[in-house]
Amino acid sequence: MKKKPLILVTNDDGISAPGIRTLISIMNKIGEVVVVAPDSPQSAMGHAITINSTLECSEVKLDKGPQKEYSCSGTPADCVKLGINELLERKPDICVSGINHGSNSSINVIYSGTMSAAIEASIEGIPAIGFSLLDYRWGADFEPLKKYVKIITKTALKNGIPHGNALNVNFPKVESDKIKGIKICRQAKAFWIEKFDKRTNPQGKEYYWLTGEFIDEDKNIDTDEWALKNKYISVVPVKFDLTDHKNINKLKSWKFK
Amino acid sequence: MKKKPLILVTNDDGISAPGIRTLISIMNKIGEVVVVAPDSPQSAMGHAITINSTLECSEVKLDKGPQKEYSCSGTPADCVKLGINELLERKPDICVSGINHGSNSSINVIYSGTMSAAIEASIEGIPAIGFSLLDYRWGADFEPLKKYVKIITKTALKNGIPHGNALNVNFPKVESDKIKGIKICRQAKAFWIEKFDKRTNPQGKEYYWLTGEFIDEDKNIDTDEWALKNKYISVVPVKFDLTDHKNINKLKSWKFK
Repeated sequence: MKKKPLILVTNDDGISAPGIRTLISIMNKIGEVVVVAPDSPQSAMGHAITINSTLECSEVKLDKGPQKEYSCSGTPADCVKLGINELLERKPDICVSGINHGSNSSINVIYSGTMSAAIEASIEGIPAIGFSLLDYRWGADFEPLKKYVKIITKTALKNGIPHGNALNVNFPKVESDKIKGIKICRQAKAFWIEKFDKRTNPQGKEYYWLTGEFIDEDKNIDTDEWALKNKYISVVPVKFDLTDHKNINKLKSWKFK
Repeated sequence: MKKKPLILVTNDDGISAPGIRTLISIMNKIGEVVVVAPDSPQSAMGHAITINSTLECSEVKLDKGPQKEYSCSGTPADCVKLGINELLERKPDICVSGINHGSNSSINVIYSGTMSAAIEASIEGIPAIGFSLLDYRWGADFEPLKKYVKIITKTALKNGIPHGNALNVNFPKVESDKIKGIKICRQAKAFWIEKFDKRTNPQGKEYYWLTGEFIDEDKNIDTDEWALKNKYISVVPVKFDLTDHKNINKLKSWKFK
């Protein structure tokens, strides 16, 4: 690629989160950067979009970098739609989302605002990557990831992400020299056993907090959970065609009555 | 099934929407019904869940039917989690979501709160169906759908929905006697070309409304869009494993550097 690539950067933790600030600094070394990100945290927003309400968007300057930045009132998917269709002067060469404070591996991808932004870009025909670190703390150390985020983005720009896919990239929470490499994986068959913590508010009304325990029953070594547990970076190609093609014939044998 | 099936009913238009009231009345003829639905409209919420805030839930009585009903402050996915893990006395035999006021065919499934509820149930191992009508109006006529919703639900209870799948059922907006039948389909490769309507508020600040044009470039006859255009009811098996398995080997050939 001779011309500098145009890179759309977004996330779900909000435009001031340390994760996206790290991602912007890395992308500034690769191309021309435009940031369109939520003005407030949007974690676990799934693929929500704003259709019954308006969106506001302001150009902002949060550091001394060369990037252009927009802070937006919507969800991560809104930011991508607005970026591609309204704010950017041309179609971006790639969209990167994150770096998320917390895991988006296995079933977590379904709830992920970070990945919904990447998937939205892939729906619009833009190569896209979501980056997440298995450390949910605001003060998480993103330093060990930097060189890998750069390598993965440059490799994706060079090879082209398969059409209809976004990459779901998760990083183990370890030092840079402990990372064993990059593994292409599938989404593990893991899930949450939910528990609701029932409490009573000062007015005597009951309310709930969602809590849960993460269960990985998938014992194979080709999963993202296996890779992360074994200190690899996991890369899963994710698609937005949700059809379970292998079960279409099974359903065709049903007699509806 | 000798014992009456236990049916969890939810939606994304809110517990008082005509679509869910119709669905409840149909389900009361099939089994024992528990409703856990959002207290307000949650359209286009995607697979959002509430993790940074609390959930409130009240038992309510909105009509004279035999069902038990809970109105909940969360998203459709929250309602399913709360229903299955906290409110229902045993695991439901099926979860039905809808009937949505508006289409959830093709790419719309990604943004759908109705389908996120069904997918959430399938993640928790519960057979699940999302029903939607291609008429977004509050006063949409659900009468023509009733016998089909009953047939599809009973057939699914009898045959068992394939593990890991939820059914995405969409109804064309036509009279009952014009419906040609039920087609098992795949999600069409259709998409939206977004446009943002830029306006100025009374204080002089710019804001946006999301609008768009729906484009179906998929000319095959095995898609949900084809079925609906031709007055069939579309049924698509939907899965929560988002991995694009066919592209794993392609990515494995990448040299990361």
